[in-house]
Amino acid sequence: MKVAVFGIGLIGGSLAIDLKKRGFASEIIGVSRTEKSANKALELGLVDKILSKEAAIAVADIIILCVPVNILVEELLFVLDRVDNQIIVDMGSTKMNIISAIHHHPKRGRFVAAHPMAGTENSGPEAAFSGLFDGKTCIICDKEDSDKDAFKAVKTLFETLNMNIKYMDAKAHDMHAAYVSHISHISSFVLASTVLEKEKDEEAILEMAAGGFESTVRLAKSSPEMWSQIFEQNKDNILEVLDTYIEKMYHFRNLINKNKFVEVADFMKKANEIKKILK
Amino acid sequence: MKVAVFGIGLIGGSLAIDLKKRGFASEIIGVSRTEKSANKALELGLVDKILSKEAAIAVADIIILCVPVNILVEELLFVLDRVDNQIIVDMGSTKMNIISAIHHHPKRGRFVAAHPMAGTENSGPEAAFSGLFDGKTCIICDKEDSDKDAFKAVKTLFETLNMNIKYMDAKAHDMHAAYVSHISHISSFVLASTVLEKEKDEEAILEMAAGGFESTVRLAKSSPEMWSQIFEQNKDNILEVLDTYIEKMYHFRNLINKNKFVEVADFMKKANEIKKILK
Repeated sequence: MKVAVFGIGLIGGSLAIDLKKRGFASEIIGVSRTEKSANKALELGLVDKILSKEAAIAVADIIILCVPVNILVEELLFVLDRVDNQIIVDMGSTKMNIISAIHHHPKRGRFVAAHPMAGTENSGPEAAFSGLFDGKTCIICDKEDSDKDAFKAVKTLFETLNMNIKYMDAKAHDMHAAYVSHISHISSFVLASTVLEKEKDEEAILEMAAGGFESTVRLAKSSPEMWSQIFEQNKDNILEVLDTYIEKMYHFRNLINKNKFVEVADFMKKANEIKKILK
Repeated sequence: MKVAVFGIGLIGGSLAIDLKKRGFASEIIGVSRTEKSANKALELGLVDKILSKEAAIAVADIIILCVPVNILVEELLFVLDRVDNQIIVDMGSTKMNIISAIHHHPKRGRFVAAHPMAGTENSGPEAAFSGLFDGKTCIICDKEDSDKDAFKAVKTLFETLNMNIKYMDAKAHDMHAAYVSHISHISSFVLASTVLEKEKDEEAILEMAAGGFESTVRLAKSSPEMWSQIFEQNKDNILEVLDTYIEKMYHFRNLINKNKFVEVADFMKKANEIKKILK
């Protein structure tokens, strides 16, 4: 199968490696917005060749959109307007926006909406590596709106990446993503910002980091461009969970301030219940 | 050297294993507040024998206090009142409280105040393992107030555990600990509490966890008893950093609410600077 990858960064590059290595793709065609990243992808052997969007659409059997979420709708419409029987799948972190935008498109059925829950805090073609997706979860949204053959091919694609596939509707996906993943990123960004402001002694940060800061702040190394787009597209769900977070944080602060340490311990005992879910 | 370990949980048990294995201790004497944990420590081979506090003090060359911080002062005073030339070291996460309490004690010089920055979210003798301290940082406070021979022996002890030793005064230690480590725990406990309240679908938590939630929430599995004591003892520093955190979180929320996504990205770009410190 000829596979076109639009956007050859961490996600696009990593799946290109494994789809080729594991025999799903006979050829990987890269499409890149910048010459620099196109050359890097060729140099690293992530893609077999680089083509223009139109040329890639014309020759590919399957088109994987790995572009940032703020241009995803535009890019998807561009591709949908030009496909015949090709299959298209995206990798975006929010789903409502894109699915509403193409709901009435005559080629809607050729598209499968997906969100592979994998990534690192790094980005760009250099960050790509084999095995990024192995054992992770991939969420496919509104699969009943995709043509059967398109869904089947995309399912095989994610199985090739050794992913566990789950199904949700797009609205539920965006809510769950905000309630679990997006709030984690925000708490981590705010933690980094707080520590950088309060702790002027960089050596002390390093020395104290093993006390849990290092793992809690890891997500604050993530891409600001990517995440501001995600927060924009999922604003309502994010504000809702953020307000709960702020309320709880303020409550916790007041318990400490009023020396109510039995209640502080009770609060943490309830939080401990996360152990029952994440073993 | 005969080593007495008061409190044989994760910390006490783990150092007992490595001090014996690496030849620092000829014998490990365990002191435990409960018969259950004493029996467990014997059964797991963490200690060679269990003695009463008085008997352990009488025969030990070095006494390591691994008890919870809320009884640490009391336990330290008990030991200091009974030592002759024995050496005492503690493992507590806060330092001002304990150091002020013994400042004028005639045996002050026999004591070395330490805080090894190592741990996991588990506790109890079953959680102990070899290598817990390897490569981690240990902070020794106010070393000039310890007798030279006591300091030297404790330094060798932490070197045996393969730790990197750093020096701070107790006041700076507690401030740095609040500004880096304690705030990380609070943000993680509040994150767990928020997600558990908002996200009623446990399967969705599991499916979304790979999106960064898992590492960010890890500290929320920590012991509520231990951490409420630490928050109590370090209240003033913690409230200070907590207020900065809440202020920043509220600011971030308002930027999203007002659709100021350029500023949202700028906020995260600044937070990204943590990458320069934690490679």
